[in-house]
Amino acid sequence: MPPKEAPLLRAARREPVPYTPVWLMRQAGRYLPEYRAMRERFGFLELCRNPEAAAEVTLQPVERLGVDAAILFADILLILEPLGVGLEFARGEGPVIRRPVRTGADVARLGPIDVDAAVPFVFEAARRVRAALGGRVPLIGFAGAPFTVASYLVEGGASRDYLATKRLMYEEPEAWHRLMTLLADATARYLNGQIAAGAQAVQVFDSWVGALGPGDYRAFVQPHVQALVQALTPGAPVIHFGTGTAALLPLMRQAGGDVIGLDWRVDLDAGWAAVGHDVAVQGNLDPAVLLAKPAYIRERVRDVLARAGGRPGHIFNLGHGVHQETPVAHARALVDIVHELSDRR
Amino acid sequence: MPPKEAPLLRAARREPVPYTPVWLMRQAGRYLPEYRAMRERFGFLELCRNPEAAAEVTLQPVERLGVDAAILFADILLILEPLGVGLEFARGEGPVIRRPVRTGADVARLGPIDVDAAVPFVFEAARRVRAALGGRVPLIGFAGAPFTVASYLVEGGASRDYLATKRLMYEEPEAWHRLMTLLADATARYLNGQIAAGAQAVQVFDSWVGALGPGDYRAFVQPHVQALVQALTPGAPVIHFGTGTAALLPLMRQAGGDVIGLDWRVDLDAGWAAVGHDVAVQGNLDPAVLLAKPAYIRERVRDVLARAGGRPGHIFNLGHGVHQETPVAHARALVDIVHELSDRR
Repeated sequence: MPPKEAPLLRAARREPVPYTPVWLMRQAGRYLPEYRAMRERFGFLELCRNPEAAAEVTLQPVERLGVDAAILFADILLILEPLGVGLEFARGEGPVIRRPVRTGADVARLGPIDVDAAVPFVFEAARRVRAALGGRVPLIGFAGAPFTVASYLVEGGASRDYLATKRLMYEEPEAWHRLMTLLADATARYLNGQIAAGAQAVQVFDSWVGALGPGDYRAFVQPHVQALVQALTPGAPVIHFGTGTAALLPLMRQAGGDVIGLDWRVDLDAGWAAVGHDVAVQGNLDPAVLLAKPAYIRERVRDVLARAGGRPGHIFNLGHGVHQETPVAHARALVDIVHELSDRR
Repeated sequence: MPPKEAPLLRAARREPVPYTPVWLMRQAGRYLPEYRAMRERFGFLELCRNPEAAAEVTLQPVERLGVDAAILFADILLILEPLGVGLEFARGEGPVIRRPVRTGADVARLGPIDVDAAVPFVFEAARRVRAALGGRVPLIGFAGAPFTVASYLVEGGASRDYLATKRLMYEEPEAWHRLMTLLADATARYLNGQIAAGAQAVQVFDSWVGALGPGDYRAFVQPHVQALVQALTPGAPVIHFGTGTAALLPLMRQAGGDVIGLDWRVDLDAGWAAVGHDVAVQGNLDPAVLLAKPAYIRERVRDVLARAGGRPGHIFNLGHGVHQETPVAHARALVDIVHELSDRR
């Protein structure tokens, strides 16, 4: 099967598929023993920066789970390294930015991001994975959306309330827009580099945009996502994802993307209706369901597939990343169950 | 003005009001210097357990801000103390439950909650506040909704992903329902005790229920909220609040409440349409807006009021609690701006 004909790419274009394609956000991660083994040898950033190791980790879930896509192993914040803001991944702590960007003056000091100099290892990993896959399943590239990346940059790490981010938006809107423009521009070059290196689809993670109300999304985020999506190399479908977005879905769809990622907090049929049936959707099983027994997982997969209604344009996924407490056998059962229950051959 | 005629109570009943009533969730809190002064003298639980001090703290924002309601100073987890699960409020850490309830066997060991023995100080504080208010503004009582309280009990504290809670739901649904029944029953007695002691309205905080998809809400939460609301003493309007609930609103409305609390992640007009105009709504300014200058606050208040459209049945509030970084002058400006812009006299 030529790669263009892979079920995932067909579904992204809303073409009929023999079965619903499925992959899992964070499918290369701590729940996999072979990933944990790699992490004993490499720190997180070290792993991202080593194309051979990153390629190996990318391929692990393809072998282990039988998913319908590989997603490049990387991190949405790598693109920030050339800004010199002190990006670190402290053990068990998540990302930390030692010199956060809080004010208009901080934003003014940021230089342009030289993407090719910053992340050559990501492009090299993509080339290796694409070659190793040999057309078995497509390779998905990814990046953080401008808001989500900006939120780390402004807060200095993960956040609960995004107060510094919102303060910058509300109090210094020009600086905010300058920051978002800088990030959208760099992100477009980053994703186009991944596409040039072999990614056949890309996912834009606006993971934390659900912290905003619709008015803020429209004023402070939407134009920048739109600019980003419009700057991408045509041909690779774009998956546009966020969490907690029930009230933002129509605006996210307007911003762009061939596929809108839905989290589990909205019923898939309602979410699809909200974005419109002229776009594909991805989702949306609650990742916590993978902690339950396969018989229960089966019941919940059946519900998601029923809500998709056999309509072309559904990519099965979790509503967010695999939890590290997930038994590998359950993740594998999920993939088999999706394939079995959606078989149209 | 007799208390029944207070704008807040009239709005809760969707009767015309001279101006839109406003109060703020967590209006008695760390952003107020007079609250911080009290907290230097009393630990958090100590303050809750001292009726004189709790009453004083309850009254502080009424004096300082001119809000249209007092809300009893207490905590949603106080009701769990008689369960002997080791409830503590560690400094700067939030609530911790040393012996969380994780399994069916744990649930089976829980005795009934003797509300009168557990929280006599809450009822006494309510009596004192009601007397001290002398009818100036009504007193709101409150409790946590069964899901939100259960989530602390199962997780052992605050949570990001609610994995243990969802695991109990999915893997041991009978135990889950037993736990929710126990909590709904105790919570009804707790709120009825507050009403008997003088609370003229009550708010049910299902603060974290937005972690669930609509299917889980319907199966695991809705019947228990319904039972709780139906068990409440008639006459005191019930405000039913949660965050991240954009896709849950119609189900929350079915569960019950005279007023549905909306967070800022949904436009107020869309949220009101989702719950139906035959119920009142409360909300929904993003609490982060209070960090911005009053001119900006004014713009955002205007938007919320415009979305309410002058329809009877709107209580102005933030979409969640006041952040402790909020300047007191901004909170006070908010109250004045709401009164000014909504004046119908």
